[in-house]
Amino acid sequence: MRAVDLIRTKRDGGELASEQIAAFVQAATHGSWPDYQLAAMLMAICIRGMTNRETAAFTHEMTNSGIRINLDELPGPKVDKHSTGGVGDKTSLILAPLAAACGAIVPMMSGRGLGHTGGTLDKLEAIPGFRVNLSIPEFRETLKKIGMAMIGQTADVAPADRKLYALRDVTGTVESLPLITASILSKKLSEGISALILDVKCGRGAMMKTRDTARALAESLVRVSRANGLKVEAVITPMDAPTGRAVGNGVEVVECIETLKGRGPKDLEDLSVLLAARMVRLAGLTETDDEAERKVRSALASGAGLEKFRQLVELQGGDPRAIDDYSLLQPELNRLVVSSPRAGFVSVMDAEKIGIAAGLLGAGRQRAEDKVDPAVGILLELKPGDRVEVGDPVYSVLFRGEEKLPAAIALLNESLVIGDTSFPASPLVLEAIR
Amino acid sequence: MRAVDLIRTKRDGGELASEQIAAFVQAATHGSWPDYQLAAMLMAICIRGMTNRETAAFTHEMTNSGIRINLDELPGPKVDKHSTGGVGDKTSLILAPLAAACGAIVPMMSGRGLGHTGGTLDKLEAIPGFRVNLSIPEFRETLKKIGMAMIGQTADVAPADRKLYALRDVTGTVESLPLITASILSKKLSEGISALILDVKCGRGAMMKTRDTARALAESLVRVSRANGLKVEAVITPMDAPTGRAVGNGVEVVECIETLKGRGPKDLEDLSVLLAARMVRLAGLTETDDEAERKVRSALASGAGLEKFRQLVELQGGDPRAIDDYSLLQPELNRLVVSSPRAGFVSVMDAEKIGIAAGLLGAGRQRAEDKVDPAVGILLELKPGDRVEVGDPVYSVLFRGEEKLPAAIALLNESLVIGDTSFPASPLVLEAIR
Repeated sequence: MRAVDLIRTKRDGGELASEQIAAFVQAATHGSWPDYQLAAMLMAICIRGMTNRETAAFTHEMTNSGIRINLDELPGPKVDKHSTGGVGDKTSLILAPLAAACGAIVPMMSGRGLGHTGGTLDKLEAIPGFRVNLSIPEFRETLKKIGMAMIGQTADVAPADRKLYALRDVTGTVESLPLITASILSKKLSEGISALILDVKCGRGAMMKTRDTARALAESLVRVSRANGLKVEAVITPMDAPTGRAVGNGVEVVECIETLKGRGPKDLEDLSVLLAARMVRLAGLTETDDEAERKVRSALASGAGLEKFRQLVELQGGDPRAIDDYSLLQPELNRLVVSSPRAGFVSVMDAEKIGIAAGLLGAGRQRAEDKVDPAVGILLELKPGDRVEVGDPVYSVLFRGEEKLPAAIALLNESLVIGDTSFPASPLVLEAIR
Repeated sequence: MRAVDLIRTKRDGGELASEQIAAFVQAATHGSWPDYQLAAMLMAICIRGMTNRETAAFTHEMTNSGIRINLDELPGPKVDKHSTGGVGDKTSLILAPLAAACGAIVPMMSGRGLGHTGGTLDKLEAIPGFRVNLSIPEFRETLKKIGMAMIGQTADVAPADRKLYALRDVTGTVESLPLITASILSKKLSEGISALILDVKCGRGAMMKTRDTARALAESLVRVSRANGLKVEAVITPMDAPTGRAVGNGVEVVECIETLKGRGPKDLEDLSVLLAARMVRLAGLTETDDEAERKVRSALASGAGLEKFRQLVELQGGDPRAIDDYSLLQPELNRLVVSSPRAGFVSVMDAEKIGIAAGLLGAGRQRAEDKVDPAVGILLELKPGDRVEVGDPVYSVLFRGEEKLPAAIALLNESLVIGDTSFPASPLVLEAIR
């Protein structure tokens, strides 16, 4: 099979046979096609698309390019959640302990933040000593002890995705449903799970800005997950403003712990509980969503979720004192308040602009090799719908250097729109795809 | 201007501004984009196409990526011909001396053969000593002395095309009208000509297999030539069977010399005269095509064309004795005859299969770095439309090694279809585009 022939087939809008897709993925894994041929194929896929059969086969091959963890020795249902990414999107740290406390096994492998969205690994690393780079045997051991573990994708998980993802970023081929679908699911399928809940974010701060594109992605993810043997459901949730009130790494961990203690922002608690409940029901631990939600709420109220999180921190090398002493997560930093220029009701707090501002402060990275600063961040003193007077604090900015501060402040001012009328809060879920 | 932004614009079917096209071409010239970004852009252009304005700007930038020879010091009109390539397509060696003998200045830069089609440089190099790699001052000197010169594109002619052409070959992006148009014309515009006749080949042995695709290419070439200031016309000519009777390098040079002596195959003589006449008229040396054709026929009959060719050979270092002693061009070689399996009329002599067979014998190259054997080749003992009996010789094969001979013979047998009825010869020109 010559590379050029496969590329020409896709260029002309043809459908690739499964063994042709396998040849492409193997070439990406082993470097047997030069990057310019991979790039030409990615662009052809990006423009011509893939059929459902092609996307399912592509995902399967991407998964099989690396290890696929087998967790059969652990009794109980293995389930995970994947979010397509947002600003202040920190539900993983809450829902994973809650679902584990309800009897699910949650073998979560996550990524780092890039661009304006945060990443679970960066947040976990704000806990002093926390190791996200467990070996696979350590990962198994942790899962066996407490029913959950949270690590990064090791180099032997979906190496074809690692290669193609880096190329897509620099060749203008990121925005492609089949490529996004295979990239997300190949990593999740490697975890050895049998069920998956997908949180597809939609709005200003999300990859998918409109309901139609979010629905298309959700449907593609559900279809391809199912074709690859997973029990799966997707919810489309709003991401116009950040979730909760904290944007950054240390500040988000504090907010998650507060939520596990029953004192978190309502939107964050409700979304985390809803997603954890879907996981519990998809895992077959309850019959209905209502029953699952009662189970999860009870794990929250009893402190069982917080206790799971404490065990997680201990087992993965983190300092458990951070759970009660927040100064370990959020050291004293310079603080600056952004105030409202007028009275009215907060109508927009643009998540994308807030995410970029947090990135400028050092909470995120522009390039994959950048380091993040766990201490900096932005706190929302108000939420959309809240009443506001002139001069009321809207954002608290925790910063270290002053170099990029003016640009961050300018973005925060831009992110804010004050309107004249109140309006109800966004629904928790816009749409569910089963 | 970020590479990724330009690539995304074209990916989504947008039109690139002239300065964006300039940035892309400069990146190809100077290596400032990695190959994978160039490849992604080429694929996006290949699928999305280019507007007329984009193609004209692209061609202009490709030309300006290298030197543009100024021949203003030579009095007289500078004119050239370009053929899109075929099998046995040797008219350059005949029409250039004829047009020069009529007073045109012909600064011809040509390419080498690749795949199943031959190249003018390979043919010229079958003449012992002939140098196609003249320096630009030597090129000027030769033009000044005899009104013609035939050389290869030097490294400083359209370097962006050199880079992109090599990438297109391995990324499945050869078949694209704007890319083909810019590649052809950037090299021709570098020659310092003011007029150009385009011979767009159509049929089994051509890049364009159908009349519609040939017409689309001819129209694109004419439009973009004109936008870049050339006087231009195109003819679409048939390339189902080889032109003339010789396919190879030395054997084709012999056939060209025979034609300049007035003893060539009728189809080759007529096409060469027609194209030379269009050059003469486009150059403004005559008012009408008829007048131009009389002038060219007279240069042929008087031997003025042959004399020009002899001067060319001498000035470019070749052995002029080859013009009379063909053993210098076509040494004694093994010879094998392919005969007709049945009686009837020759209805197909598939130029592509014959071209591939000649390539297998060593007359062509599979990869750009291969060397060609000037002595091997195939002679057509019959032409389409001829009557044939069982066992009549159809092809004479001149070969050196026997390794690939069986495959070549098999292709020649496949190339031949004997039918039951006679039919008229193909027209010389299928269509003209002015």
